[in-house]
Amino acid sequence: MKKLWGGRFTKSAEEWVDEFGASISFDQELVMEDIEGSMAHVAMLSKTGIITEDEAAKIKNGLQQLKEKAANDELSYSVKLEDIHLNLESYLTELAGPVGGKLHTARSRNDQVATDMHLYLRKQVKLIVELINEMQEELIEQAGKNVETIMPGYTHLQRAQPISFAHHLMAYFWMLERDKERFAESLKRINLSPLGAGALAGTTFPIDREYSADLLGFEGIYENSLDAVSDRDFILEFLSSSSILMMHLSRLSEEFILWSSQEFQFIELDDSFATGSSIMPQKKNPDMAELIRGKTGRVYGNLMGLLTVLKGLPLAYNKDMQEDKEGMFDTVKTITGSLKIFAGMIRTMKVKNEQMEKATKNDFSNATELADYLSDKGIPFREAHEVVGKLVLTCVEKGCFLGDLPLDEFKKANTLFEEDIYEVLDPYTAVKRRNSAGGTGFKQVNIAIEKAKKFLAKKEQDVN
Amino acid sequence: MKKLWGGRFTKSAEEWVDEFGASISFDQELVMEDIEGSMAHVAMLSKTGIITEDEAAKIKNGLQQLKEKAANDELSYSVKLEDIHLNLESYLTELAGPVGGKLHTARSRNDQVATDMHLYLRKQVKLIVELINEMQEELIEQAGKNVETIMPGYTHLQRAQPISFAHHLMAYFWMLERDKERFAESLKRINLSPLGAGALAGTTFPIDREYSADLLGFEGIYENSLDAVSDRDFILEFLSSSSILMMHLSRLSEEFILWSSQEFQFIELDDSFATGSSIMPQKKNPDMAELIRGKTGRVYGNLMGLLTVLKGLPLAYNKDMQEDKEGMFDTVKTITGSLKIFAGMIRTMKVKNEQMEKATKNDFSNATELADYLSDKGIPFREAHEVVGKLVLTCVEKGCFLGDLPLDEFKKANTLFEEDIYEVLDPYTAVKRRNSAGGTGFKQVNIAIEKAKKFLAKKEQDVN
Amino acid sequence: MKKLWGGRFTKSAEEWVDEFGASISFDQELVMEDIEGSMAHVAMLSKTGIITEDEAAKIKNGLQQLKEKAANDELSYSVKLEDIHLNLESYLTELAGPVGGKLHTARSRNDQVATDMHLYLRKQVKLIVELINEMQEELIEQAGKNVETIMPGYTHLQRAQPISFAHHLMAYFWMLERDKERFAESLKRINLSPLGAGALAGTTFPIDREYSADLLGFEGIYENSLDAVSDRDFILEFLSSSSILMMHLSRLSEEFILWSSQEFQFIELDDSFATGSSIMPQKKNPDMAELIRGKTGRVYGNLMGLLTVLKGLPLAYNKDMQEDKEGMFDTVKTITGSLKIFAGMIRTMKVKNEQMEKATKNDFSNATELADYLSDKGIPFREAHEVVGKLVLTCVEKGCFLGDLPLDEFKKANTLFEEDIYEVLDPYTAVKRRNSAGGTGFKQVNIAIEKAKKFLAKKEQDVN
Amino acid sequence: MKKLWGGRFTKSAEEWVDEFGASISFDQELVMEDIEGSMAHVAMLSKTGIITEDEAAKIKNGLQQLKEKAANDELSYSVKLEDIHLNLESYLTELAGPVGGKLHTARSRNDQVATDMHLYLRKQVKLIVELINEMQEELIEQAGKNVETIMPGYTHLQRAQPISFAHHLMAYFWMLERDKERFAESLKRINLSPLGAGALAGTTFPIDREYSADLLGFEGIYENSLDAVSDRDFILEFLSSSSILMMHLSRLSEEFILWSSQEFQFIELDDSFATGSSIMPQKKNPDMAELIRGKTGRVYGNLMGLLTVLKGLPLAYNKDMQEDKEGMFDTVKTITGSLKIFAGMIRTMKVKNEQMEKATKNDFSNATELADYLSDKGIPFREAHEVVGKLVLTCVEKGCFLGDLPLDEFKKANTLFEEDIYEVLDPYTAVKRRNSAGGTGFKQVNIAIEKAKKFLAKKEQDVN
Repeated sequence: MKKLWGGRFTKSAEEWVDEFGASISFDQELVMEDIEGSMAHVAMLSKTGIITEDEAAKIKNGLQQLKEKAANDELSYSVKLEDIHLNLESYLTELAGPVGGKLHTARSRNDQVATDMHLYLRKQVKLIVELINEMQEELIEQAGKNVETIMPGYTHLQRAQPISFAHHLMAYFWMLERDKERFAESLKRINLSPLGAGALAGTTFPIDREYSADLLGFEGIYENSLDAVSDRDFILEFLSSSSILMMHLSRLSEEFILWSSQEFQFIELDDSFATGSSIMPQKKNPDMAELIRGKTGRVYGNLMGLLTVLKGLPLAYNKDMQEDKEGMFDTVKTITGSLKIFAGMIRTMKVKNEQMEKATKNDFSNATELADYLSDKGIPFREAHEVVGKLVLTCVEKGCFLGDLPLDEFKKANTLFEEDIYEVLDPYTAVKRRNSAGGTGFKQVNIAIEKAKKFLAKKEQDVN
Repeated sequence: MKKLWGGRFTKSAEEWVDEFGASISFDQELVMEDIEGSMAHVAMLSKTGIITEDEAAKIKNGLQQLKEKAANDELSYSVKLEDIHLNLESYLTELAGPVGGKLHTARSRNDQVATDMHLYLRKQVKLIVELINEMQEELIEQAGKNVETIMPGYTHLQRAQPISFAHHLMAYFWMLERDKERFAESLKRINLSPLGAGALAGTTFPIDREYSADLLGFEGIYENSLDAVSDRDFILEFLSSSSILMMHLSRLSEEFILWSSQEFQFIELDDSFATGSSIMPQKKNPDMAELIRGKTGRVYGNLMGLLTVLKGLPLAYNKDMQEDKEGMFDTVKTITGSLKIFAGMIRTMKVKNEQMEKATKNDFSNATELADYLSDKGIPFREAHEVVGKLVLTCVEKGCFLGDLPLDEFKKANTLFEEDIYEVLDPYTAVKRRNSAGGTGFKQVNIAIEKAKKFLAKKEQDVN
Repeated sequence: MKKLWGGRFTKSAEEWVDEFGASISFDQELVMEDIEGSMAHVAMLSKTGIITEDEAAKIKNGLQQLKEKAANDELSYSVKLEDIHLNLESYLTELAGPVGGKLHTARSRNDQVATDMHLYLRKQVKLIVELINEMQEELIEQAGKNVETIMPGYTHLQRAQPISFAHHLMAYFWMLERDKERFAESLKRINLSPLGAGALAGTTFPIDREYSADLLGFEGIYENSLDAVSDRDFILEFLSSSSILMMHLSRLSEEFILWSSQEFQFIELDDSFATGSSIMPQKKNPDMAELIRGKTGRVYGNLMGLLTVLKGLPLAYNKDMQEDKEGMFDTVKTITGSLKIFAGMIRTMKVKNEQMEKATKNDFSNATELADYLSDKGIPFREAHEVVGKLVLTCVEKGCFLGDLPLDEFKKANTLFEEDIYEVLDPYTAVKRRNSAGGTGFKQVNIAIEKAKKFLAKKEQDVN
Repeated sequence: MKKLWGGRFTKSAEEWVDEFGASISFDQELVMEDIEGSMAHVAMLSKTGIITEDEAAKIKNGLQQLKEKAANDELSYSVKLEDIHLNLESYLTELAGPVGGKLHTARSRNDQVATDMHLYLRKQVKLIVELINEMQEELIEQAGKNVETIMPGYTHLQRAQPISFAHHLMAYFWMLERDKERFAESLKRINLSPLGAGALAGTTFPIDREYSADLLGFEGIYENSLDAVSDRDFILEFLSSSSILMMHLSRLSEEFILWSSQEFQFIELDDSFATGSSIMPQKKNPDMAELIRGKTGRVYGNLMGLLTVLKGLPLAYNKDMQEDKEGMFDTVKTITGSLKIFAGMIRTMKVKNEQMEKATKNDFSNATELADYLSDKGIPFREAHEVVGKLVLTCVEKGCFLGDLPLDEFKKANTLFEEDIYEVLDPYTAVKRRNSAGGTGFKQVNIAIEKAKKFLAKKEQDVN
């Protein structure tokens, strides 16, 4: 081989370039999909008479053998043969003889690889939808046990109003529900067949694209061959949905980390998801929650990476598009893992009810209740605020909280106050009374949990 | 005011901080939505008896006046009043008197601003769907005129196979169709009412969230109050869909730029979308296509920005979330503008048929046809390739192209060649013969255009 | 004007396109730099005899008038004239007569706009370096007051080892120092003159690029004209440095937010940087810290945006590059504002020493000290750990902490324990004893503060 | 092990979590750095008397054995042992006996891993600087051969003015020079020792950080222990510099792809860097250029990923930071590979001079010359433009180019035209005459090449 560089590199140039350009190190992930796609293609070729039934039988037999070898992890791949397609083609020719070459009639690597990716992502997205369901079930389960567990609700990480812990958990149920919807909707665009688009323009052979699409379980075919081979929207959409999902998990991670701190002490994560210290029993690092929060960056990066790759690319296939795979595989691995870990963390965590409840007392977060009390009795909101502001000041001077003031102090501030204010000031009551639709009142939370259960049951039915 | 800095800054610190924290400079974009939301809220307060009908009438009257002033651009806003909500509240109190304060019963700025954003994005997304339709119609129109316009199809920016220019344009039709689907699907999650979620926990007032949601045309309500005020998925989803759309437009931009170059000369953009040079008549810069390609970066950046903002935020509202608006407004402006420009560019561009067709000749891109010809007659693909390879070599030696060889040269190479090969070698025939579903054959392209037209008509019916 | 669209848009198409393509709405920020650049250019044209001294005098006079008008905010700009350069050219011709046209001899908008950007960013980066210095001074000041303020040091947001609060603050000093270094180093590449590169290829006029570069205070000239007009590295570098800076500020923001929570209560931010509640005195939202944390997203987005714009652009100037400005302006505004706010927050915050110190007691974070104690006396580390683990267990059983155990309990565990262990267990001692270079020991912290002061003083000297 | 999930997963939960949390699959890349760091640490422990010389000798001996095994690829790693540090610790204890445990005196995994990363990146950045030099040398070499090779210079991908091909290539020389500067400057911050910072607070042992830093070739130590373990700026800076480098390479890739198209035909890439077609000799896909253009996305994504990870993290170490490694390794692999490939492509590409030159003729890109000609003779620029505009119109009517007009046509337009205009209109002359500093004139280009050579020679001296 001619000298490609100025003689500084000892390793053979050819080797470098081959390695740099080859995709076999990662696209072997698609081995099963590639065989599956070939199976359908050969069936179509035979059905349309493009190859004979005998030829088809030989190729199918070879593919079947390949499938078994792949399942038993008996295939090894060569960088020289660049990618999974050429590696399998080479194996097939060994197993089926020269007739193996006929498999590639009326097909190009461009539509072949696109088909593999669609098959792969369809499978993964269905799995992800199931894993989201699992995590939602754990949320419902924990929520069910904690409807009347009172905790501070926060805005700006400042205690704002007491809420039900179940209500807090259920907020994540709905985030996940939207995630699931997005993944499910994207299936519509994933589950289309590019097979038969050829290199870019279709083919002169009398193929039957609907037939192979049916065999592969696709819901339809790409309507335009140029689009079929150059479209990677379905991966971008997957990466977007995954980014939003990871954002949600990063928020819950942050909360688990806060709640596990000595300052909050709202929950204790199971040892399986934390690392401890042999001599510091109070120290239990919420490693898995931190790691998942960190992995958000990786998924965002994968999205940004592919968006960059595709920016400004002319039609149809360009080699740049080989860069679509690693980020997708990595994202699948990251989000399936994260969902599993979270399901486990939620299931096994210990909720420290007393600590949470304690945090709702000993401060003035019930002052709003008092203002609402007056407002309810007809006092304009701004005026009610003023009255309560003065009462709080009285407390601060006396070094006590609102519930500690005697009734006459209240009456001095406004004659509308009655004995029932003590109940109003109780965080438990405060939570209970927020009974508007979707609010934190226990009744509402119970309704919400029941609704969520039915929701989940129905969805599972739909999918199956 | 106490000295906040070490005395180095001359400008008042308070002013700095106020300006830095205020959102009125950009959230005034939401003025109409804010008034609309308040109208529904006051109607609900009155219907549920939380305020009297008389109070409601006064407030509504004030809001109506505000609306007119806003429509006539008669409102000016103050940074001191921080945001659009407080600015309007202040105006309302002026117009309606102290009763204006009652508007804020059972509502918090947290659910109020979320409501505004949902209303705003619903309107914009519907507009965007229409604008995509416009651009699709122009694509269909141009495609209709260019079914039999032959051009080189490219892979790796190398001429691969001749295709119909209409087929190329229609690839973008389907990309846009997916964009439209994504925007339309996201409406399901945009068109939900957070109103009544309060600051984070719901309210103790007997509100009717379904009622105000109905008045505002929402399809449903958020099921969880914490989620309602802290969810920004709908904006992320919008930014994702917009990023993918811009990626598509950047690809078409790149092609328009290439095609407008002196090297390609496939199209000429209308003067309105290009800038020329007084003394270089051949130079016509495709400014708009370049600018739109460039604006892809801005939209990607807006997506990445909001993903970053939301990463790791604990529930519920945090001030960080104020950063959700500018990127959204900017993206709306960018993509609506880009879609309009593109519709115009496609409509007015001059297609240089002869130049395109010329580019399909005078090279060996028809060699594939020859191989297919043999393959069709039963010669195994690999063998056919070899035969053609030799013929090409012969041409190179003789300094001619395949169509220039006499028939006996073909027959020497393989006896299956007949007189009809000259037709096969013609690019026009090559395009015509790629008649597989979704392929570039004229028949297929005509079918695709008809399908697209029906598709568009049906969709428009669906939306209206 | 000919119909550009299918008749659906009421607004004139021309207006749309003009507005979409014009940059005057944002590039007017460069007005002073543009005039400054022209001043130097005309001086060079005159010095080299390309224009006469008389012509130069007239142009300079016109520019001087323009400068005053700009300073007094008396200029208004037209979208028709596209950008700041054409707007100013038009003004100049009004003020100086036709000779104004000569200003554009041997200059193109491509080198002109690049020159403006370099001038602008040089000024801003110098300001930013000063603002970082201000913030560092406040950190030193607060650190100086809190050398012996003890607080828990965290890893995984779990209390790990007690540290000096000053030590924690000084960690940010060094982050900022690196930020400053990066900005300062980038000046080398910002402070170069592209002026004279022409449209892309240089000029046939006998210009003197060194001369105009000198007048503008540039340290050198771009060595290649194509590079001069197409390089935007200096902006990317600025956006990268800004992203890292914002990342640092987001970390400190997070800590300020945590520390301001009722759970931590380590600091109280000044009212100027927080928003309170009239009736919840305990609630003080750390709005500015949250907002700055959120603004990190915006700066990351600006970086990603420009990286995307430039990806894959062929040389030399392309209209895409007009997208380089808004993200830069926005980033300048964001980081200068954030640095000022932070300087003020640090200066005015109230440090709650007792609360911090309290948090270092009442747990087992001093267990490590005990292990080190034994290790120091020759016991292998692993064995020491075991001994301490048992002692902790004893405490847990007894419901006490390590400092509460009587000496004989310690001796039972290992005879090497002596009376001095009680001092060792004290957090104050624990901090004091971490006296390794760069460690949290008070002596080290004092050394570090002195070093930082000298460092800052020296740097200021260097810059001035 | 207790049931972590609702029984749906067959694989052991523990296994899942372990795999998810472990870093050994990627951080084994750091094996040599980890051993090197330990070598220095043990030397310091012995020198300061923290361990005995005998203990040190045993540990060093064990480390030496480990190093050899690692070099011979004889180590296998266990997921159970989580990361490279624990894996090596376990091996060391096997090889050196229990004394191996003493290696970890006064060191924590937090400062250990930071040290490894600094050592790793220092090595890689130095290699990258060398590889950039190689590519610059190839650019100089090709430029040297092509000073008088004329090609069209483009703006907006429209032919603007003819330039020297060498000048175009040298634009990339200066981009790479800036890249090199940035990498070199970042070394200052990479080449610092975090060793001795402990977990976060330093240590009570009398360590000598300067000593171990010296042994490891670091230029200094981190001044603050919290900063030392939580700083990842040096990786972000590396990823930023790499992103800008990849942006440059993506631009040159784009140009190579354009120039290799049938439409441009300016260069032919060597077969080693392209893939051909057995039957389409004109088709040569510039695969490597496309792939590198695509890999830009991956590097941008890695940058965005780590920026996201670090956003809002409180001090000091958090598990999120484990995510700092894979993106860094991947980026190193990507940019070293891309630089090598580019050096080879430039060295071996065939420049098609005639084709390039042909493209500078047969159009009106020399019209500017004509205007400059008049301007030079005192005609105001705007007027000169008008004259030329008319001449061009004449040509268009006659169907010729400017050089084809007889002299009297020129004189009719303006009497100042003389016989020498034919030379002026020649592209060769046009290039030659742009002799301003940094311009495309041959003289300037030769000067620039000589300067670049000296520059490179000097730099190499500096580094060595």
